[in-house]
Amino acid sequence: MLEVVTAGEPLVALVPQEPGHLRGKRLLEVYVGGAEVNVAVALARLGVKVGFVGRVGEDELGAMVEERLRAEGVDLTHFRRAPGFTGLYLREYLPLGQGRVFYYRKGSAGSALAPGAFDPDYLEGVRFLHLSGITPALSPEARAFSLWAMEEAKRRGVRVSLDVNYRQTLWPPEEARGFLERALPGVDLLFLSEEEAELLFGRVEEALRALSAPEVVLKRGAKGAWAFVDGRRAEGSAFVVEAVDPVGAGDAFAAGYLAGAVWGLPVEERLRLANLLGASVAASRGDHEGAPYREDLEVLLKATQTFMR
Amino acid sequence: MLEVVTAGEPLVALVPQEPGHLRGKRLLEVYVGGAEVNVAVALARLGVKVGFVGRVGEDELGAMVEERLRAEGVDLTHFRRAPGFTGLYLREYLPLGQGRVFYYRKGSAGSALAPGAFDPDYLEGVRFLHLSGITPALSPEARAFSLWAMEEAKRRGVRVSLDVNYRQTLWPPEEARGFLERALPGVDLLFLSEEEAELLFGRVEEALRALSAPEVVLKRGAKGAWAFVDGRRAEGSAFVVEAVDPVGAGDAFAAGYLAGAVWGLPVEERLRLANLLGASVAASRGDHEGAPYREDLEVLLKATQTFMR
Amino acid sequence: MLEVVTAGEPLVALVPQEPGHLRGKRLLEVYVGGAEVNVAVALARLGVKVGFVGRVGEDELGAMVEERLRAEGVDLTHFRRAPGFTGLYLREYLPLGQGRVFYYRKGSAGSALAPGAFDPDYLEGVRFLHLSGITPALSPEARAFSLWAMEEAKRRGVRVSLDVNYRQTLWPPEEARGFLERALPGVDLLFLSEEEAELLFGRVEEALRALSAPEVVLKRGAKGAWAFVDGRRAEGSAFVVEAVDPVGAGDAFAAGYLAGAVWGLPVEERLRLANLLGASVAASRGDHEGAPYREDLEVLLKATQTFMR
Amino acid sequence: MLEVVTAGEPLVALVPQEPGHLRGKRLLEVYVGGAEVNVAVALARLGVKVGFVGRVGEDELGAMVEERLRAEGVDLTHFRRAPGFTGLYLREYLPLGQGRVFYYRKGSAGSALAPGAFDPDYLEGVRFLHLSGITPALSPEARAFSLWAMEEAKRRGVRVSLDVNYRQTLWPPEEARGFLERALPGVDLLFLSEEEAELLFGRVEEALRALSAPEVVLKRGAKGAWAFVDGRRAEGSAFVVEAVDPVGAGDAFAAGYLAGAVWGLPVEERLRLANLLGASVAASRGDHEGAPYREDLEVLLKATQTFMR
Amino acid sequence: MLEVVTAGEPLVALVPQEPGHLRGKRLLEVYVGGAEVNVAVALARLGVKVGFVGRVGEDELGAMVEERLRAEGVDLTHFRRAPGFTGLYLREYLPLGQGRVFYYRKGSAGSALAPGAFDPDYLEGVRFLHLSGITPALSPEARAFSLWAMEEAKRRGVRVSLDVNYRQTLWPPEEARGFLERALPGVDLLFLSEEEAELLFGRVEEALRALSAPEVVLKRGAKGAWAFVDGRRAEGSAFVVEAVDPVGAGDAFAAGYLAGAVWGLPVEERLRLANLLGASVAASRGDHEGAPYREDLEVLLKATQTFMR
Amino acid sequence: MLEVVTAGEPLVALVPQEPGHLRGKRLLEVYVGGAEVNVAVALARLGVKVGFVGRVGEDELGAMVEERLRAEGVDLTHFRRAPGFTGLYLREYLPLGQGRVFYYRKGSAGSALAPGAFDPDYLEGVRFLHLSGITPALSPEARAFSLWAMEEAKRRGVRVSLDVNYRQTLWPPEEARGFLERALPGVDLLFLSEEEAELLFGRVEEALRALSAPEVVLKRGAKGAWAFVDGRRAEGSAFVVEAVDPVGAGDAFAAGYLAGAVWGLPVEERLRLANLLGASVAASRGDHEGAPYREDLEVLLKATQTFMR
Repeated sequence: MLEVVTAGEPLVALVPQEPGHLRGKRLLEVYVGGAEVNVAVALARLGVKVGFVGRVGEDELGAMVEERLRAEGVDLTHFRRAPGFTGLYLREYLPLGQGRVFYYRKGSAGSALAPGAFDPDYLEGVRFLHLSGITPALSPEARAFSLWAMEEAKRRGVRVSLDVNYRQTLWPPEEARGFLERALPGVDLLFLSEEEAELLFGRVEEALRALSAPEVVLKRGAKGAWAFVDGRRAEGSAFVVEAVDPVGAGDAFAAGYLAGAVWGLPVEERLRLANLLGASVAASRGDHEGAPYREDLEVLLKATQTFMR
Repeated sequence: MLEVVTAGEPLVALVPQEPGHLRGKRLLEVYVGGAEVNVAVALARLGVKVGFVGRVGEDELGAMVEERLRAEGVDLTHFRRAPGFTGLYLREYLPLGQGRVFYYRKGSAGSALAPGAFDPDYLEGVRFLHLSGITPALSPEARAFSLWAMEEAKRRGVRVSLDVNYRQTLWPPEEARGFLERALPGVDLLFLSEEEAELLFGRVEEALRALSAPEVVLKRGAKGAWAFVDGRRAEGSAFVVEAVDPVGAGDAFAAGYLAGAVWGLPVEERLRLANLLGASVAASRGDHEGAPYREDLEVLLKATQTFMR
Repeated sequence: MLEVVTAGEPLVALVPQEPGHLRGKRLLEVYVGGAEVNVAVALARLGVKVGFVGRVGEDELGAMVEERLRAEGVDLTHFRRAPGFTGLYLREYLPLGQGRVFYYRKGSAGSALAPGAFDPDYLEGVRFLHLSGITPALSPEARAFSLWAMEEAKRRGVRVSLDVNYRQTLWPPEEARGFLERALPGVDLLFLSEEEAELLFGRVEEALRALSAPEVVLKRGAKGAWAFVDGRRAEGSAFVVEAVDPVGAGDAFAAGYLAGAVWGLPVEERLRLANLLGASVAASRGDHEGAPYREDLEVLLKATQTFMR
Repeated sequence: MLEVVTAGEPLVALVPQEPGHLRGKRLLEVYVGGAEVNVAVALARLGVKVGFVGRVGEDELGAMVEERLRAEGVDLTHFRRAPGFTGLYLREYLPLGQGRVFYYRKGSAGSALAPGAFDPDYLEGVRFLHLSGITPALSPEARAFSLWAMEEAKRRGVRVSLDVNYRQTLWPPEEARGFLERALPGVDLLFLSEEEAELLFGRVEEALRALSAPEVVLKRGAKGAWAFVDGRRAEGSAFVVEAVDPVGAGDAFAAGYLAGAVWGLPVEERLRLANLLGASVAASRGDHEGAPYREDLEVLLKATQTFMR
Repeated sequence: MLEVVTAGEPLVALVPQEPGHLRGKRLLEVYVGGAEVNVAVALARLGVKVGFVGRVGEDELGAMVEERLRAEGVDLTHFRRAPGFTGLYLREYLPLGQGRVFYYRKGSAGSALAPGAFDPDYLEGVRFLHLSGITPALSPEARAFSLWAMEEAKRRGVRVSLDVNYRQTLWPPEEARGFLERALPGVDLLFLSEEEAELLFGRVEEALRALSAPEVVLKRGAKGAWAFVDGRRAEGSAFVVEAVDPVGAGDAFAAGYLAGAVWGLPVEERLRLANLLGASVAASRGDHEGAPYREDLEVLLKATQTFMR
Repeated sequence: MLEVVTAGEPLVALVPQEPGHLRGKRLLEVYVGGAEVNVAVALARLGVKVGFVGRVGEDELGAMVEERLRAEGVDLTHFRRAPGFTGLYLREYLPLGQGRVFYYRKGSAGSALAPGAFDPDYLEGVRFLHLSGITPALSPEARAFSLWAMEEAKRRGVRVSLDVNYRQTLWPPEEARGFLERALPGVDLLFLSEEEAELLFGRVEEALRALSAPEVVLKRGAKGAWAFVDGRRAEGSAFVVEAVDPVGAGDAFAAGYLAGAVWGLPVEERLRLANLLGASVAASRGDHEGAPYREDLEVLLKATQTFMR
């Protein structure tokens, strides 16, 4: 019996080994990524039973994604190789930190999610369905898919987790806001960063007012995170690490929080686990390579005082 | 004053360092490519004055293409960075030789060539306009561009060179045949491989009958090449090299032949130069990295007997 | 329902990137290996349903083996992480071809196989149980395990395949001969190389007389292979490839032959498949990295004439 | 019309990938460098029209320098390949930061600069001629060249910029002082570091008194920089970055200041740009690889508060 | 005449190039190590005449150890290649710092040290015999060897230095304590870390009381070190460096202290040298790669104020 | 007691990892080389007691050379670090095989050999003094050194071996011929290639007539080698290997022949050993990295039939 199901578009990331503009690079490292793939891998490493719903192309990058998910022990009952290509993206880091991302995902096999894309009975008995705000930004069908999947989850008593994951290059703020308002009644657990709150609602307070899900987790960067549950605000300190590659840290954060929720941990422990996973992924190259395994947790949490601000 | 102008879509190639399926690779090498870019670079290295007409995106891969062409001394008066993305492709070699190519070029900035894409007076005084059969396969506009450019060349007394470069994944044989028939009256020099001849016309003889340009060069792989000029058939032996990465060898072959034509060499010498360049590119990684420089030619041609079958 | 089950000790191989004595190397590549692991992976890539029975340590190399087998889709119902360490070995190639292997496997978790190590009902309905002559060389218990597994297979109508795989550093010829004589009545399909035949029996003819299983496949190196079935000798030509890393080629050969047998192919086709797989693995680095996928076969077999001597 | 012209000796740098003594290294990275080359590249990336005057050998390293300058869009009207070799140097970083430089530049083609080495009309209409204190240290002819070029600039109303760039291994302090005193009347803009001031004049105050050019920029390391203009002292804070490879940071600093001057920015903005460029180059490997492009500036300057001490 | 002799088991270390679990790595770097080998190399680099007593296998890793020691100028009169294998170990660093070590040393050639393993007259005239607490943990014979060697040293007026080097995976605390009590009367100089003190004796004070050698050096991590000599406590500040690979830092620390003692430096200078060497090794990859050479010391000690807390 | 002494200039070689012009390379491999260093290392690996006489700079490349020679067990009694720099060179291979070498050795510490550079009593009891034709080409002093060393050898009954090693870029043919004529009376064993014979004397026969030393070995490339001893011509077949990096193969050939002479092998065996060593070095990267060790010989010579043409 699965504990978490997540759905979305897998991507392959191409990343230079050294900081600097891509134009000067001759070698790129290849990583499997995609927000929901990252969440699935991080959960599986913690021993949470997790299934991933999605599609990749019948090409080599699709095979790469499939092998990675299988290797990590993610359930693939509703994962499919489909006609079309697997989305990819290139990213760069510059010496002073900024840098750009270049997507090659438009029209990909993975973006072709629509209502009915999987048998919703797959959700029976599952604790959480986790989605991100990237999928609804891909196409009208994918948006409909997101709402449909949330409804099917609701119908089966599955709690819905949504990571806002706002991507400016995929849709304008007003569209994203529209989707969030539409989806909100179905959301039990919402992940939101301060930056997203400001981009979408102007101010954090405004965003928190607009997005009043039963459980809201606000990621505040180096200041840690807040969780609003049952009218109470819990705090979690950030871990101090040198961020080698921040991509995927937010996904690992969500996975850590979800694992804590599945295990019935109190909210402060959920936040601690979330921050631990986020720090671990940020401190290593790749989109989820740094996610810890269950057997690492004891040592890591013991060492926690070293990392807590 | 330029001697050759070529036009087409630049691409960036991502290639694993070792043979084997892409799914198992963690590092990819990055090369600048695209058939006409390869021709332009190979000509520039030989000291032929060459201009490249085309577009790339306003992204980092576009900057990479531009820097490479500028470094090689190709004239870029009608090269442009344009909105949109720069096309790329991944390729693999398998241990026993086969392997696949995966394109990410649909809708790219580089494929948006149309009649009027450059000021045709750029062709004034030029010896050859070189095009490939890839451009007309990209879109109806690009097909129109190819015919338009050939007409503008003709009008100015510029000889037109066309490399058939048939790509099965871009268009069906009958469409390609249609284009060739339409274009043929404007073509002065045609490059064709035996494999293309068979794919498009069933038999080599048939292809040669159908494609009776004033000068036709038939590439016969390890058997060398034939040039049909003024009703005479000249032969050129292939160079025996271990093909490390055959991509781009045909482009270098065309460049070698064109350079010989620009320099007024007899047809046998043109073929010898063509085979030399083709072998040199096939024997090294990258789409044109192995193209020799003018100062290499003396040594290479002296060493020729070693390589001639 | 599984079609093949194989059992043995997984190993991790550490291999320099360039030829030369290990003493001068600063970087080693890491590969998953072990004869039966290689067979399992090669079968899984061809789409044969295969299970692997064995153990690795509760260490990182054990996790590496497990992830690889899971990624490749091998059934792991009777694969276990166990106390102890995972065996490893270093190998080198010298410029003129020779080179040595250094084992660190004595007392490993993987060598602790004994009768009862898995539930023999796992073999119900399986077509082949495949073993190698390495396991019985590891310890008396492992030898007993081999005979026990063969008996359990026989009892369930499962055909037994045995690759002689003689390792001089693990046991003397007379012990190996003793085991083979003891095991032979239970063997339906025997793989043997000319070199092994000479080491163990002095002459090939002598070996063939002594080892008269119903189906015997004699690997003759560059001369190809013979299969003796029903009193008939079938021949298979070797593929001509540059051997980049011959380790694992024999395992892939066995896997190709077994796949052909599972699919009911005639013996000549089995040999062809066996030679194809062996060549593909020999032509690439790693112990099974070069094993082809089912979807590669069509192209590869078409290209066969190129490779056939 | 060029905005800046610079002249000097290009060098090729060979640098290990990891800290540690060179004696233990087996791989070296290759970078194009030389103080004035670095300034030219950094200016060109910012969109300043810049020409480089100098020579390299007719060898491969010379070709490498030429290709790099051409790729970056530097004007090469008075750049020449000449008989002789291209200078190179090896450098190392040790784990605790110190390390040595080993020059192979004595007698190089690039050091053969003498009065008349280029047509001084090249300077017509140019805003700045930029030189460094390395060239006059190379030979008496090169010293004469520096003074000659400054005079020709003066004659044409071109402002002269001089970076002291004192190299202890090339000449003793008294010779350098002598040159500076001789050159000073022709210098409009002088770059000097605190360390240089102390080596050459004992104390910073002393150096500032001796070197009273109309505009003097004093680089004070982590303490930022001071610019003395029109009897006023402007301050610029340093950017806090982890220095990965400090070589070239001073050259980038000068380029940033010069760009600001060309663009008519107020002195505080010139310093800010200078510090930004210096930090960006120090934070990445290579002698100028980290120099930002014009399109990076907006993001970088926005992010500035993060970096400002 | 040798100044220091050390004895122990050489090891080869296999280390991934990037942080992260070993299971995900495809390349490992190879380093020569082993606590006493590290001490010997660090001393040799400082110009101290040092001999290493020990054994390695007749395999390639043994040849690697021998070449490294010979290259560094360590005296090898009583170093031997012996039947058996050379011990190795794999280590990993995780993104948040923890990580595991996996030994393959049980039964190695190097662990077979026993009384009489070398001619004790080798110690004549030597200033220090340096041993570590790893050797007595390898086997009863190796424990006897340690005591025997200390006695032979005593008999010849050679001072005995012992680094506690407690390895939990090799023996339990009570056994280690037993050995230390047994050995203590023969020890002139003892190295101990706070962590070891707590593991073995519960509290640092307790350890210091129990281990009252004439000279005791307590390593206190980032807090520096204390030396207790003649009833006086001297302090040495730690150097602040980013620890890239802490393995071997303690060995380098001991070597620095020993070198200072050989040179007759006052205790504060010995500590300064010890901290300098420890920092230098911790700041670079490999088990002793970062150890400085005598000619580095002047610059390093001058730069000391930068590093001192 | 040494068996062979050799003297000359050590060099460090910088070599790209892939074929292609140096201008396009970003990484260079570092190898220790120099003809006589190569001979010394190859002899030491075979167990021949060999001393190397020469100098390198007090720089890091000099330290690299010294460590390598010490690691290989070469006697360094008359090896010195001296003021000045260590010579280096860059080389490249092009896809079709040609390529250039760029020297940075003029004025190096290593080229400063002159009569009296070592105590000639070092030669007492030695079997062979081996020199190459490179040293006399470096400077008049170095030429005098060569003749002086040969005389000192003669005086002590040491046989003199000279490898012609003609380098066109160092001196013209007539000067080299002059030296050879001057030196010949002192030469007992001369190594000469067909190519050198033609460059220096026009025809091989002419060279053999002019250079009539008691023992002359003529290297004939793929055709093998001839040895003229006592009026008899012995033949040795070449080994067929793929030449990965031919530099140093001639030095290894000389070392193999010398080892055979030291061991008193018949001339055919000397040639076989010479060819074996030459092939082994040619088949691997680096100037002597591929030289085999004594313990390799048995296997290699057994495998010989595979390699003999």
